[in-house]
Amino acid sequence: MSLITLTTDFGTKDHFVGAVKGAIYSELPDAKIVDITHHISPFNITETAYILKNAYKSFPDKTIHVIGVDSELSIQNKHIALELDNHYFICPDNGLISMIASEIKPTKIFEINIHDRVESSFPVLDVFVQVASHIARGGSLSVIGREIDSYKQIIEIQPKVNDQQTIIAGGVIYIDNYGNVITNISQKQFNAIGKGRDFKVTARRYTFTKIFSRYNEIVDYSIENNDQHDGEKLAIFNSAGFLEIAIYRSNLETVGGASTLLGLEYRDTITVEFENPITPEFTPIN
Amino acid sequence: MSLITLTTDFGTKDHFVGAVKGAIYSELPDAKIVDITHHISPFNITETAYILKNAYKSFPDKTIHVIGVDSELSIQNKHIALELDNHYFICPDNGLISMIASEIKPTKIFEINIHDRVESSFPVLDVFVQVASHIARGGSLSVIGREIDSYKQIIEIQPKVNDQQTIIAGGVIYIDNYGNVITNISQKQFNAIGKGRDFKVTARRYTFTKIFSRYNEIVDYSIENNDQHDGEKLAIFNSAGFLEIAIYRSNLETVGGASTLLGLEYRDTITVEFENPITPEFTPIN
Amino acid sequence: MSLITLTTDFGTKDHFVGAVKGAIYSELPDAKIVDITHHISPFNITETAYILKNAYKSFPDKTIHVIGVDSELSIQNKHIALELDNHYFICPDNGLISMIASEIKPTKIFEINIHDRVESSFPVLDVFVQVASHIARGGSLSVIGREIDSYKQIIEIQPKVNDQQTIIAGGVIYIDNYGNVITNISQKQFNAIGKGRDFKVTARRYTFTKIFSRYNEIVDYSIENNDQHDGEKLAIFNSAGFLEIAIYRSNLETVGGASTLLGLEYRDTITVEFENPITPEFTPIN
Repeated sequence: MSLITLTTDFGTKDHFVGAVKGAIYSELPDAKIVDITHHISPFNITETAYILKNAYKSFPDKTIHVIGVDSELSIQNKHIALELDNHYFICPDNGLISMIASEIKPTKIFEINIHDRVESSFPVLDVFVQVASHIARGGSLSVIGREIDSYKQIIEIQPKVNDQQTIIAGGVIYIDNYGNVITNISQKQFNAIGKGRDFKVTARRYTFTKIFSRYNEIVDYSIENNDQHDGEKLAIFNSAGFLEIAIYRSNLETVGGASTLLGLEYRDTITVEFENPITPEFTPIN
Repeated sequence: MSLITLTTDFGTKDHFVGAVKGAIYSELPDAKIVDITHHISPFNITETAYILKNAYKSFPDKTIHVIGVDSELSIQNKHIALELDNHYFICPDNGLISMIASEIKPTKIFEINIHDRVESSFPVLDVFVQVASHIARGGSLSVIGREIDSYKQIIEIQPKVNDQQTIIAGGVIYIDNYGNVITNISQKQFNAIGKGRDFKVTARRYTFTKIFSRYNEIVDYSIENNDQHDGEKLAIFNSAGFLEIAIYRSNLETVGGASTLLGLEYRDTITVEFENPITPEFTPIN
Repeated sequence: MSLITLTTDFGTKDHFVGAVKGAIYSELPDAKIVDITHHISPFNITETAYILKNAYKSFPDKTIHVIGVDSELSIQNKHIALELDNHYFICPDNGLISMIASEIKPTKIFEINIHDRVESSFPVLDVFVQVASHIARGGSLSVIGREIDSYKQIIEIQPKVNDQQTIIAGGVIYIDNYGNVITNISQKQFNAIGKGRDFKVTARRYTFTKIFSRYNEIVDYSIENNDQHDGEKLAIFNSAGFLEIAIYRSNLETVGGASTLLGLEYRDTITVEFENPITPEFTPIN
């Protein structure tokens, strides 16, 4: 039994997803297929990377992840299959892997070369399903491609730190279902640079001097009911480990979320300013 | 093999649902996972109850239902696992169960107490999956929690009946995919109070003196084609057993549905007025 | 193990889909259920046919396809079960099958007659699941219905060709997730009529003299980067074999797609005009 996940920008209305699943079951009657999402914004690689990076680790080793975002074959957009962190990924070589593999490197990368059939405008169906089935049956990657030693690099918008290590300038990389605004500043980076110093997070004209680890830490249950904090803004390290600006118990369709209420959009700048114990604001005159 | 359902407000774009499914398959490779919905309006317990109440009964006994709506742990929002109607439910103790269990009471309720690990802002992934897996493997609820004898009560908006038993005043509790407007007045209550009397249903400035059991009862097929009734309003006891105000063959994206065409919203009042054979409007002068 | 697909207009928020899946698993614990889509526009048979026609062929033989679109029983809308192309279909007799079966005819058609129970406003749950389970268990169709020899015909909007075979007048039948506009003109028809002649495709005020087989054929990779063609319009025979007007790398939520940018809507006319080698524009005077 093999586990195959799908991450695409196909949407769930068209026939694309159904066709792909039918083809997988035709090849592998016992497969289990899991939708990670089909609602990636068309051709958006940054979104794909954020979602996939946070989802794949929950799956068992040897899970096969099929990615259908911007997957049309061209000489600038090869198809690759690779092993990474004991998982398999089948995807276009469009930079996606460089964002997922920022910490863990792929052990083996193969450029898929089974395209010597009809030209296809639907490679996930015509090519990726074949590759996934081959892997699921225990086949070697070398049968479906030739080993290569690199993949396309995309310089992901990374947070920048100044030389004095007092300011991290990050950016918004994703807005989630609740309208919460997720930055590219990880808790790990924050801790490594901040080293426990006091700080101020600034997102547009809003500032935060505390970062929560649970949303409802904003509530003091000893003296109050939790309802009265609904709609308050807060900063949190989210379950994926990134700094997030959130609205407590938000709803994009009614009261709004952090993105709409605070006016924060994809790629907006979020900064963290740490107090500087080394250079005091005024140096003593002597 | 165990059957696990998911009902959440996670949406289907973010990594949340994929991560939860991956974690379940990591624990239970043979599980079958069914999405009831991931499109609950954020934090909306009334919606969750309506949907879950009408979906769970179709599943086989021993199905495990995981509910991820407003599930962050707090001293006011414990996590519970319980048996109800031969099904298992794992959910926050936020009043949801009181709405589902209005007719059938839980046989056993346990407050989950396996949180003595890292604090989590994603309890469905970090806690509920563990509990579901434990139950699926035949484990006892007493291992993952301590038995309690009550759960949080929410006074659901219940229809009110006047003393003379002539008027039921109910409310809109849900608007479905077709824009149909569902009330909290059940067919059972209607029959018990109405006892076959004539009646008038009033929803804003619209009235109905007949309640259908199928939508197309509005059509007289002996004399006409069914097309000419498209867009007509009607009252029906829907398949869930509730009084519903519908538009025949509606479409929210084109012609509109009952909610948009009749201006009916969540929590609006719908009344049923029964003819009163006991107290005539004018008593005779003698 | 049986494979059952679902194609409905139920949406994915209401309890409908969950209830149907629960009922199937109650009958068939080992079934595999695949969602083709639940986002058909309410009651839209043309959309249903387009999506199902392009999805079902990927599935293995003997797959059971349950269609819940406009499925309420009436004397004008019977329920049927049939074999077509080695697949089973359970659906209302509302014309849908005539659109799917334009090339391959059903081998056996049965009018379902197990409705002698309670009247139902949810026949997919109450009737179709029973029929699907019966078929999955190897039961004969004759047990659940009586054989009939025809089904309702809908004259699908078919492309028209003039007598001189110089013009095909087709129409928009579907707009996909990327805003691409799909016509009812198939590559097969195009080739049979065009016989290799030069042509001009006209969609509103836009014309195309080339039809691609892959979207990125618009890019000349030998001299350029593919980014600079983003947003360009093109004509393509899509993976389903139909003439499609597309925008290269479109996104309905940001830059727009062919439907919004070119102002093309469902049922709009698209024409193909072939050069006519037989009747020259001016006949010689002699």
